[in-house]
Amino acid sequence: MSGFPYQELKSPYRILLGPGPSNIHPRVQKAMMEPLVGHLDPYISTIMDDTANLLRFVFQTKNELAFPISGTGFSGMDAAFGNFIEPGDVAVIGVNGIFGEKMTDIAQRYGAEVIRVEAEWGKMVEPEAVAAVLKTQKKVKLVALVHVETSTGVLQPLEEISRLAKEHEALFLVDTVASLGGQEVAVDDWGIDIGYSGSQKCLSAPPGLAPFTANRTALDTLTKRAKKVPSFYLDLSLIAKYWTAGTKAYHHTGPVLQFYALHEALALIAEEGLEARVTRHLRNGTALRAGLEAMGLKLFAQEECRSNSLTSVCIPVGVDDLRIRQRLLNDFSIEIGVGLGALKGKIWRIGLMGHSSSLENVLLILAVLEKLLADEGYKTEPGAGLTAASQILKQSTTE
Amino acid sequence: MSGFPYQELKSPYRILLGPGPSNIHPRVQKAMMEPLVGHLDPYISTIMDDTANLLRFVFQTKNELAFPISGTGFSGMDAAFGNFIEPGDVAVIGVNGIFGEKMTDIAQRYGAEVIRVEAEWGKMVEPEAVAAVLKTQKKVKLVALVHVETSTGVLQPLEEISRLAKEHEALFLVDTVASLGGQEVAVDDWGIDIGYSGSQKCLSAPPGLAPFTANRTALDTLTKRAKKVPSFYLDLSLIAKYWTAGTKAYHHTGPVLQFYALHEALALIAEEGLEARVTRHLRNGTALRAGLEAMGLKLFAQEECRSNSLTSVCIPVGVDDLRIRQRLLNDFSIEIGVGLGALKGKIWRIGLMGHSSSLENVLLILAVLEKLLADEGYKTEPGAGLTAASQILKQSTTE
Repeated sequence: MSGFPYQELKSPYRILLGPGPSNIHPRVQKAMMEPLVGHLDPYISTIMDDTANLLRFVFQTKNELAFPISGTGFSGMDAAFGNFIEPGDVAVIGVNGIFGEKMTDIAQRYGAEVIRVEAEWGKMVEPEAVAAVLKTQKKVKLVALVHVETSTGVLQPLEEISRLAKEHEALFLVDTVASLGGQEVAVDDWGIDIGYSGSQKCLSAPPGLAPFTANRTALDTLTKRAKKVPSFYLDLSLIAKYWTAGTKAYHHTGPVLQFYALHEALALIAEEGLEARVTRHLRNGTALRAGLEAMGLKLFAQEECRSNSLTSVCIPVGVDDLRIRQRLLNDFSIEIGVGLGALKGKIWRIGLMGHSSSLENVLLILAVLEKLLADEGYKTEPGAGLTAASQILKQSTTE
Repeated sequence: MSGFPYQELKSPYRILLGPGPSNIHPRVQKAMMEPLVGHLDPYISTIMDDTANLLRFVFQTKNELAFPISGTGFSGMDAAFGNFIEPGDVAVIGVNGIFGEKMTDIAQRYGAEVIRVEAEWGKMVEPEAVAAVLKTQKKVKLVALVHVETSTGVLQPLEEISRLAKEHEALFLVDTVASLGGQEVAVDDWGIDIGYSGSQKCLSAPPGLAPFTANRTALDTLTKRAKKVPSFYLDLSLIAKYWTAGTKAYHHTGPVLQFYALHEALALIAEEGLEARVTRHLRNGTALRAGLEAMGLKLFAQEECRSNSLTSVCIPVGVDDLRIRQRLLNDFSIEIGVGLGALKGKIWRIGLMGHSSSLENVLLILAVLEKLLADEGYKTEPGAGLTAASQILKQSTTE
């Protein structure tokens, strides 16, 4: 025997209202109880083909390349820059939060000359600022943006900047980790050449997969690379061969149980309908924001670009960040997100993503926050948050 | 609604006797039904600490760095070369099958000057050949070997080559994807500086994680790198911070359900005991080989270095490879492995890994193969395979 102690798994139930993972539907978790088959079994091949089709549906694209990378959301970001950047390429990257920052680090690791287009955290990246930078550059390989910046809750408008990228013959790369399946993401209509996401946010599958898509324009640049993509594991051309309908050439041992879970999560989205799902996220996000403001709290993100999947709210002066989050977790089993970087202690991040985006959760977090804030000496009119939220919820459910 | 068809998950039960994944214990699959928690939840932190300790136990190491990378086995190989190779480094790599070949490709992607030490497929890499190459080199960054070459079933002896690597002040890197948890892997005693594995073979967790370990000697070289590791996702120093006991700094969203499953799979190994588990693999591997030979079949791998986790057997002349494998799968729900590369149509690869390595499976595959081979016109003495195998099984169970 081993001679060292380890515990039995007894995981606590959590209401996941942070920046992801979100709660998963019981059907998604049950899917992982299906028998494990080999990664080249004829059966898994049919599930993979289905999954690719379902991903095309949520990405709203006709792209041939649509599959999940066998890693978490950052493996998508890493693959995006690792495949489409070659040393010396110019990458114009919008930076208004942690994930834009990560993009610059990752692009530089692959040898990009990065030009940052900064915006204050909590504000959107302005098309004018991108245009001004593009004017100074002769050849830009790609323009990259984060659709929902999970560190601030900003929803970045994409279409105008997409147009600018095209004018400069640059690829348009978008991080949809915190938006896909919650906010609208129209890859083809919006001219997104390269997009990736994570399984564990608005898609509400377990963490571990990174849905990816790229169009022909983007893929054509891969065949012109001077050198192979540095990472074999993240080499999109090879992963694509494993995902090609019919052929399924071995590249790695696909995480089959994760594939089952993602397939079921995407089937749930198809059943709900994309439009209905986006509307649900809008309704719940709007109600949460109305409730928080009715409690006198200040929203962090600029009013014109607030995401429905993640709401950032300023922590009132005199309120103890850590104590509130610990009481939420320990007394109420609720997880919310901490502020990242310079925002630590300044904001909370409340996620309403996928299966977690429900009427019940909106009312619950408002009620519990009112109680905990009151204990910290921050008084609001009793029930003001609930009342404001319920008015929004009522409006939209009786429409 | 979506307007395209997709199927309901109805996965067939498979007896997984291929090169991995292996069948998983019901307790491992049940572990994935535990509630999902956040990747920075205090609870998952305790499960991660446990998992690291359990990995140290199976790797037989005191290394501080021991964690699963959030990707499949190849993410381990990719991380090993991506972190420890810098452009211009010399890597001496043993090549006697597909996975040694992959090592050379991956090392070259990261700029290594690769020196191949080849052996015929099915034979071990000879220490003398490694010594001869090392003599010609002034400075070698690392010597790399595959412990169990899954394409041939060769079990590579490691200790003498480890000693040679140390004499030349080179790091010793070993792929234990198809051995860890089935064959003995003594990281510290054998002087393995860098080792990685896959969750889905002898550990019998679902595919999706790559256990990794490295010692202080190896890690010291990371701090001296001229440039950052190309892949952020596979940057071991950053992943290590996420896995550090107590601190758990965010690097990526850990695939929490996979962590549960690996934890349970490792707990099962601790309960069984490493020595008992290795003995079980030895008994079943020996019985399988005896049975196959009693049926007049020729084993592919050199006698002195046959793995117990994977047995390669030559397909008799006149027997249809594809038809046999299809009948195994369709009529008997049994998966075995196809020959890779030049061995396609020449050999089958029968895995007895982790939970799949059982007395029942040894007898079953021998009985079914006898029947299917007979249908192809390949006659054996009826029951010869079963008899030979049962004698081995009986000996060892009455010891």
